[in-house]
Amino acid sequence: MASTYGRMFRVTTWGESHGPALGAVVDGCPAGLEISEEIIQHDLDRRRVGQSKVTSPRNEGDKVTILSGVFEGRTTGAPISLITYNKDSDSTKYDVIRDLFRPGHADYTYWMKYGHRDHRGGGRSSARETWGRVASGAIARQVLKHIGVDVYAFVSELANITMDTFDREQIDQNLVRCPDPVAAERMVTAITDAKESHDSVGGIVEVRAENVPVGLGEPTADKLDAMIGQAMLSIPAIKGVEIGEGFQAVKMRGHQHNDEFYMENGRVRTVSNHAGGMLGGISNGEQIIARLAVKPTSSVAQDQRTADIHGQDRIVLVEGRHDPSICPRVVPVAEAMMNLLLVDLYLMNRSARLDHLEPGQELI
Amino acid sequence: MASTYGRMFRVTTWGESHGPALGAVVDGCPAGLEISEEIIQHDLDRRRVGQSKVTSPRNEGDKVTILSGVFEGRTTGAPISLITYNKDSDSTKYDVIRDLFRPGHADYTYWMKYGHRDHRGGGRSSARETWGRVASGAIARQVLKHIGVDVYAFVSELANITMDTFDREQIDQNLVRCPDPVAAERMVTAITDAKESHDSVGGIVEVRAENVPVGLGEPTADKLDAMIGQAMLSIPAIKGVEIGEGFQAVKMRGHQHNDEFYMENGRVRTVSNHAGGMLGGISNGEQIIARLAVKPTSSVAQDQRTADIHGQDRIVLVEGRHDPSICPRVVPVAEAMMNLLLVDLYLMNRSARLDHLEPGQELI
Amino acid sequence: MASTYGRMFRVTTWGESHGPALGAVVDGCPAGLEISEEIIQHDLDRRRVGQSKVTSPRNEGDKVTILSGVFEGRTTGAPISLITYNKDSDSTKYDVIRDLFRPGHADYTYWMKYGHRDHRGGGRSSARETWGRVASGAIARQVLKHIGVDVYAFVSELANITMDTFDREQIDQNLVRCPDPVAAERMVTAITDAKESHDSVGGIVEVRAENVPVGLGEPTADKLDAMIGQAMLSIPAIKGVEIGEGFQAVKMRGHQHNDEFYMENGRVRTVSNHAGGMLGGISNGEQIIARLAVKPTSSVAQDQRTADIHGQDRIVLVEGRHDPSICPRVVPVAEAMMNLLLVDLYLMNRSARLDHLEPGQELI
Amino acid sequence: MASTYGRMFRVTTWGESHGPALGAVVDGCPAGLEISEEIIQHDLDRRRVGQSKVTSPRNEGDKVTILSGVFEGRTTGAPISLITYNKDSDSTKYDVIRDLFRPGHADYTYWMKYGHRDHRGGGRSSARETWGRVASGAIARQVLKHIGVDVYAFVSELANITMDTFDREQIDQNLVRCPDPVAAERMVTAITDAKESHDSVGGIVEVRAENVPVGLGEPTADKLDAMIGQAMLSIPAIKGVEIGEGFQAVKMRGHQHNDEFYMENGRVRTVSNHAGGMLGGISNGEQIIARLAVKPTSSVAQDQRTADIHGQDRIVLVEGRHDPSICPRVVPVAEAMMNLLLVDLYLMNRSARLDHLEPGQELI
Repeated sequence: MASTYGRMFRVTTWGESHGPALGAVVDGCPAGLEISEEIIQHDLDRRRVGQSKVTSPRNEGDKVTILSGVFEGRTTGAPISLITYNKDSDSTKYDVIRDLFRPGHADYTYWMKYGHRDHRGGGRSSARETWGRVASGAIARQVLKHIGVDVYAFVSELANITMDTFDREQIDQNLVRCPDPVAAERMVTAITDAKESHDSVGGIVEVRAENVPVGLGEPTADKLDAMIGQAMLSIPAIKGVEIGEGFQAVKMRGHQHNDEFYMENGRVRTVSNHAGGMLGGISNGEQIIARLAVKPTSSVAQDQRTADIHGQDRIVLVEGRHDPSICPRVVPVAEAMMNLLLVDLYLMNRSARLDHLEPGQELI
Repeated sequence: MASTYGRMFRVTTWGESHGPALGAVVDGCPAGLEISEEIIQHDLDRRRVGQSKVTSPRNEGDKVTILSGVFEGRTTGAPISLITYNKDSDSTKYDVIRDLFRPGHADYTYWMKYGHRDHRGGGRSSARETWGRVASGAIARQVLKHIGVDVYAFVSELANITMDTFDREQIDQNLVRCPDPVAAERMVTAITDAKESHDSVGGIVEVRAENVPVGLGEPTADKLDAMIGQAMLSIPAIKGVEIGEGFQAVKMRGHQHNDEFYMENGRVRTVSNHAGGMLGGISNGEQIIARLAVKPTSSVAQDQRTADIHGQDRIVLVEGRHDPSICPRVVPVAEAMMNLLLVDLYLMNRSARLDHLEPGQELI
Repeated sequence: MASTYGRMFRVTTWGESHGPALGAVVDGCPAGLEISEEIIQHDLDRRRVGQSKVTSPRNEGDKVTILSGVFEGRTTGAPISLITYNKDSDSTKYDVIRDLFRPGHADYTYWMKYGHRDHRGGGRSSARETWGRVASGAIARQVLKHIGVDVYAFVSELANITMDTFDREQIDQNLVRCPDPVAAERMVTAITDAKESHDSVGGIVEVRAENVPVGLGEPTADKLDAMIGQAMLSIPAIKGVEIGEGFQAVKMRGHQHNDEFYMENGRVRTVSNHAGGMLGGISNGEQIIARLAVKPTSSVAQDQRTADIHGQDRIVLVEGRHDPSICPRVVPVAEAMMNLLLVDLYLMNRSARLDHLEPGQELI
Repeated sequence: MASTYGRMFRVTTWGESHGPALGAVVDGCPAGLEISEEIIQHDLDRRRVGQSKVTSPRNEGDKVTILSGVFEGRTTGAPISLITYNKDSDSTKYDVIRDLFRPGHADYTYWMKYGHRDHRGGGRSSARETWGRVASGAIARQVLKHIGVDVYAFVSELANITMDTFDREQIDQNLVRCPDPVAAERMVTAITDAKESHDSVGGIVEVRAENVPVGLGEPTADKLDAMIGQAMLSIPAIKGVEIGEGFQAVKMRGHQHNDEFYMENGRVRTVSNHAGGMLGGISNGEQIIARLAVKPTSSVAQDQRTADIHGQDRIVLVEGRHDPSICPRVVPVAEAMMNLLLVDLYLMNRSARLDHLEPGQELI
């Protein structure tokens, strides 16, 4: 609901871009999990802006503090409160947009919905909100590690440049998080060019999950496909999601798209994986594949037509330090959402079968 | 949750393809709404198979009966129970797949998740489940009519044939529900060809909503984009969703993709609508546009490799009457999901602002 | 939410007293459970009115039909739809209250909330709605049987007559479901007297659960005490709930009320059970005890002052066949609610600890 | 769910008694509400321990800081994050109970449920958690003020002493928050006596709500009675809840208990209010009345039998500064829960009727 993700593993984020602090509360995390600020910070550092020349140079001070739910290094089952304090929060530069609506941003819709808004840096609609998702996602990642699931993401296309080779080791070796180092270099150039022309570029982020148990996802409303759709389209700047072949499936015939089954070491496998790891909305044990359409960043330093809260036509020039492409920063957020989702579904699904329930006095 | 859609306007569907009946329970519908079996049947008739030569010839007997929640022609606020009884339910032809997993279907994943399944006609995973969505969606459509919102969908691409012209009046004039009558004819031919070659084809369904109030959708987890993603990806055979420009946005630059604002008759409008009617996850009053990737139907009458519940490699030949393309039938289901979603968000959003709350004794 | 109980084991009831049918949909029941109409009917028969001279003589035809979710005698994990068709539905006798509000009933509040109501027999507010709870509760009881939990209820006080002895075997041996046969006889007389004087009497129903695993219930909002409070106060005519000593605890001192611990066969037990089976909102493995205050039935065949929908003062005389005490019929409903609640919490709690999660490919 | 109260006005609390901080996140508060740390602090100061000789002398430092969701003195619709930092947190005195289970406390059940616990001061099960409820409740109170609803609570019985007179002005004039100053003095003496004899006493807290709109509460599962039951039984130390006459209704006859209706100034009123302000689970506009059974505090400075985590029988002596009666401190918490609940139901109920929905472009 609104600021809360998940049903069993529930994450509530709070905080505005230029408020005193941001945070997240994780409720429903199994007790006994080893967790520390260092483990969480590791994921947060991958999200941080100011990390390279292709992303915004602000120092946001993403340092996490754990305020509850962890005792002597392990979770207690109580809600885990995570906080970071905002720095660098001179917001006078936002005075100019106090009563203006920036095109592509949420200024107008928030104004209409709420009638009162924190305009500084986008307030609640700022991508800074994803801090809480990544911090919580790091905890989810630890739970998944316990059951052997492995999630990662990368940039597969940017500014019309697509990757040709895949080497997972390369992803964190370049500034755009592309697994193809040659394409990565061209992408960096494209971002630099966009920046110089006061413009921005879009791209595609792909998320994968390996070693996912068979059986995650529910029939009908909560299909795994549907839950991935919600999780990914809740990330700022995402305007499309596809699973497996996705929109390419549209061009295929049924006999091509169907993934035939065969037995391998006593386990049912599929010959191909056009379905992206799920059938009937339930995981089938193959690699989960989702691709996200990332729009070009809305903040471009050019004059744009707009209106203001007084109903006047205006011209706005959005200044400030902005990412010419948000794609590299979407990578850790997409991972976080997939981690959160898979833990949530895993916890929800442990009771699907009667033979999973243990007779007797103990909760198992 | 699982079989339930929505939070304020909650729809729970139940029933299997070859069980005695299917149905839906709608809870949270405002009292006082005029509704009748005729109104609901009108939408159901658009969903029905056997309606044309390009869809499956089964007579499913989709007739709706209202069992509760409506008194003297108007809703009472109590849950509305809708039921239809299954006919034509000789299921012996499914004996052959009792212990086999059809490629592309949910047989294998249901088997693994639940350990016991109704194999007849796909059981719960059958597209027959959408009966309850369309029946409930017809009620949602009546609520939306009250506030002036108008939802419709159509096939924009099928078997690599794309529409070139748009005439809303044409949609229900042809068998494939394409607003371009010329493309429609070619699509019909493509479906017939696919049928003859024992194969199936995919396509794209576009859903639009007109006259949507500004302010629907919540920040962060429940963005309007995200809720559309979940709603549409919960429809059988959908493998991708995009909003506005969607995956085309990936190729654009920021200054192109941003929709500039201007004043029109005292109302803030956008010059273009690349965003598809929402900003920051909240409706902006422009046309809502979503496109769905529909995979080619999984039931193809060709030999396919598979495995069985005993861990043996097998060959399966899926026979029976099947739609060579599900696209025309996705149209009313996509409309239903959009209707359900918009009502749900509308009811949820009436309290967003304090000045929406009325002092005094009355609930308003 | 409204017509839905539970989070993992979700029951949605629907139907009005004099509509064509009533029913319930159970979503989230583990697959593989043996269930049949006979098993469910057994619990329903205990609820039925017309079963004795101390309850209403109507023949309500409570026969259950399973419409979905069960295949070859076992649950499939799909929603289970249960239905019963109303008989004996001449509702002309309710014409007199079409525009009147019966004191003690929901006529006035439904009218104000919904502006349109089915007045026949109380419509949705009729105790007939509990049919769906008892039918669903019978399924929950089967799940609990699998893990060894045993729930039962009885009348401990009625018309100021309290039980002095407890013999569980006696409960179903008398018309009022009192475990003390001597008190039971006096209670029957009191009910007959009330009936003759056109009046009604209240009482207390006690619910117990044996062999409950330690660990059910959540900290803070969803304490086991709180969930029992909600479940029991959702039953018609219940105006109070107490756990363990309940309102008697008010008179005690701390050293008396505290249940001291001791070891018994390697298990932590309590010397006394003033707390009624829970500490800090979590089950402690001792007997769960809740007591419900049942108000005297509101339908009394005496002239009463009232008002009508036109704002006029009126006199109403409620005629018809009514229970002079609802207590005996609350017994199976209270059992149903406890069964539903305990299954729900059990399914929700299987993931509380990391060491409950199984590494590897399987959902356990 | 677990640490979250409410569905529209959602409050998530977090924090342990001796962790670095405690807090609450309020999501779903209407935008535009005037709120400040001063307004919230006012309610928190009423909850604070150390406020008198009859409550614990600890200085808990309850000072609230608002971290998000409020901009220039008014809510923005974004989640409101409230925090307080713990002081006085020397927890070495709790070392003695690190592996012991205190009778009447949650030590044993948390240990069994989670397998790892923060034992210091009760950790998450400490009544200190109610800080977040009272802080959030202060915001809810401001919303209710806008619509004219007024909630208050008081101690009506303590250590077998009952109040004889009612003067609302007296409630905050004495240490036990009893509206009868004579009874209040006797209660203070009783608490002092209990303290001297190393014991504790129970009592009854009554909560009332005035001027509640007709129509709050839902049929069946979410009856107003049921929601009050859950809210109040989620407060630490509460073991019973009754509405209106409650357990006294058990002794009454139907014609006595029914509240007859009459017209007063064009409004339907009841002659009496045995039902405590609700009929059929829906508010009827009369005063809402609930009474809570408060058990005697579990911490008594006497030797008690117990067991430890190693399965050994032990003797425990709980030392430290404890309240000999928690009743005076339950008062602000009970008010908070009622405030939270009524706002939640009010926001949820604004769409119950079609004629409450406004046609056209605006969300109303």
